[in-house]
Amino acid sequence: MTAQQQTSNRSAKVNSFRVMTVMHRAAELEATGQKIIHMEVGEPDFTTAEPIIDAAKRALDKGYTRYTAAPGIIKLRHLICEHYQQNYGVDLGCEQILITPGASGGLMLLTNLLVESGAGILISDPAYPCVRNFIHLAGGQPQLVPVGRSENFQPTVELLTSYVSDSTRGVWLASPGNPTGTIVDREQLSAIARWASSHNCHLLVDEIYHGLHYVDDLPTALEIDPSAFVVNSFSKYFGMTGWRLGWIVVPESCVEVANRLAQNLFISSSSIAQHAALAAFEPQTREILESRRDAFRLRRNFLAQSLRELGFGLSDRIDGAFYLYASIERFSSDSEAFCHDLLERFGVAITPGTDFGEQEGLKHVRFAFTTGMDELRSGVDRLAQALGR
Amino acid sequence: MTAQQQTSNRSAKVNSFRVMTVMHRAAELEATGQKIIHMEVGEPDFTTAEPIIDAAKRALDKGYTRYTAAPGIIKLRHLICEHYQQNYGVDLGCEQILITPGASGGLMLLTNLLVESGAGILISDPAYPCVRNFIHLAGGQPQLVPVGRSENFQPTVELLTSYVSDSTRGVWLASPGNPTGTIVDREQLSAIARWASSHNCHLLVDEIYHGLHYVDDLPTALEIDPSAFVVNSFSKYFGMTGWRLGWIVVPESCVEVANRLAQNLFISSSSIAQHAALAAFEPQTREILESRRDAFRLRRNFLAQSLRELGFGLSDRIDGAFYLYASIERFSSDSEAFCHDLLERFGVAITPGTDFGEQEGLKHVRFAFTTGMDELRSGVDRLAQALGR
Repeated sequence: MTAQQQTSNRSAKVNSFRVMTVMHRAAELEATGQKIIHMEVGEPDFTTAEPIIDAAKRALDKGYTRYTAAPGIIKLRHLICEHYQQNYGVDLGCEQILITPGASGGLMLLTNLLVESGAGILISDPAYPCVRNFIHLAGGQPQLVPVGRSENFQPTVELLTSYVSDSTRGVWLASPGNPTGTIVDREQLSAIARWASSHNCHLLVDEIYHGLHYVDDLPTALEIDPSAFVVNSFSKYFGMTGWRLGWIVVPESCVEVANRLAQNLFISSSSIAQHAALAAFEPQTREILESRRDAFRLRRNFLAQSLRELGFGLSDRIDGAFYLYASIERFSSDSEAFCHDLLERFGVAITPGTDFGEQEGLKHVRFAFTTGMDELRSGVDRLAQALGR
Repeated sequence: MTAQQQTSNRSAKVNSFRVMTVMHRAAELEATGQKIIHMEVGEPDFTTAEPIIDAAKRALDKGYTRYTAAPGIIKLRHLICEHYQQNYGVDLGCEQILITPGASGGLMLLTNLLVESGAGILISDPAYPCVRNFIHLAGGQPQLVPVGRSENFQPTVELLTSYVSDSTRGVWLASPGNPTGTIVDREQLSAIARWASSHNCHLLVDEIYHGLHYVDDLPTALEIDPSAFVVNSFSKYFGMTGWRLGWIVVPESCVEVANRLAQNLFISSSSIAQHAALAAFEPQTREILESRRDAFRLRRNFLAQSLRELGFGLSDRIDGAFYLYASIERFSSDSEAFCHDLLERFGVAITPGTDFGEQEGLKHVRFAFTTGMDELRSGVDRLAQALGR
């Protein structure tokens, strides 16, 4: 191999997702006529709500097909400001909000903004794998904090204190988290924010599953720490995955640098998607989204109970997102083989924990309830059969 | 300032664009009722062609609102393959083509794929400023090769040989180039490709202004070097700036790593934009795009001649894109003051060369002919007045 064919060392640290292999194989089996129950997919099964679609068409008719300002159209940033005011009681300056091409764009911007070469970022294990990869690409070091059922899969101040090092410059939280569906409650978030501040660490919080929570109180980090960096998205609660639209919130002191990065990294986010997203905050859209949230809640209730009955180990408090992270210790010590077998022999597609965790990934699998109740019931029946229950 | 407020050293290397200041100030002046002639804007003044808009609406009706495969929908990648076959006689494997969120996404993917920390990339000065910034963000070192009118603003093998160093790992070309509108012709491209190969350097070529060229022969690097990395876009010729859609072509050997990066960096490009872009290759769309190209050609002819008559120094061969890079040596040695004065006193918005060049940026300005002939004529009249001609 000549140097010409060599790819960067950095890119070698970026894993592919095992869920892609699962999805690919599931599609192959479907092509042979087999019926597959999909509980692997990390996006809502609902099409984008009609009022958002209609707003996109109006934007097309008006010819809104050019670049927007790098941080996004003012109207949308205003609506997001209002959203924080109304739903969280947080007053932000509009300029603190930057629209990004999906949460992916937000993660990229924040890691480039904050992660120094060689800097350590504390992050739970398991976690959404892209975050580790973005930290690697920025030249930083993900410092994995193993969390299990006893911590409800979220870091504690005690754990952070055990894993902090001289190079640590940030703490990365996700609430609700993927793959676990657990949240960081107000008290814990306050404690972690204080800890981060006293350790001179940035606090970065993934809130992309906000809205899809099943408890009354889910605070944004901004209620507790105005210097926190937050990434959010129109993908999950707002049901706009394929549009690629998200946002970040940065403190005033970083607005100027964040804007420069946005100009360079993206030029702008999709104009049509931004204009469509204006309708995401309308009452009629909210009604649709809330009824979808109710559907997710019912699915969670059903699937969590069924899996517990089948012998999977689950957290007691799964309060958000559309995932269950289940221990398979009673059945297997190899989640990849377990998932493979389930797919090949029983037509059930789920994701091995090795996509998310380095420490206990082989002992866990992720179920996504991104499919209807009838499908979930069939899935549970097939699992019962597979496990001989 | 606490460490918490500090942003990365890497992000400090990323410049903001002076054109943004020009656009911002132009908007302020317009708000006071002043008429501004816009020759600063780097995107076509045409709205996206109707067949593409219609295709987007059909995609919305069909509910194509979810993630696509990371490298894009197969149909679009097939059409791009055909495009290379029909227009350039190049046979590519479909898997070599990855759809990206704009050329911005393509630049980000390629720099992460190829630029090792500390590696040098030879790139002309002047050039599109984002590329230098992407190289910086990947931890690499842009190695600027000063090019002027005598080289038609494109690097020669002699220049590359003077500026290569032990750390050099790549050569970055742009043909047609922004801000200069000049191309690398077939003979020169072959020579540079041979040079890159013999120096164990990646060849990376920005072809985002392909299609907007005014000569018969504009080769893609892939005709000459199958191991070249190419970035292209639906923004310019296809008139889809605000949709944020581009593509890259990578050699077979890099397909797997490039896919992993695409999964992690973007998840996918916009689904609606991809489905809309299918219509970009239809004959009726081509007809619209070709008539727009004719319009750009007429504007170039008019503006180049007018600027020469006014005393600006221009290249003899401006064969693509929608820019003229003009020497202002006869009038000023400070392009920023020159542009500022033109805008404030004569309502003409153009971009100082300092956005693009470190060496001769103060002696040049960029004119964009992204506005109609009447506007261009007014602009030339105002310039004549400003220069006392």
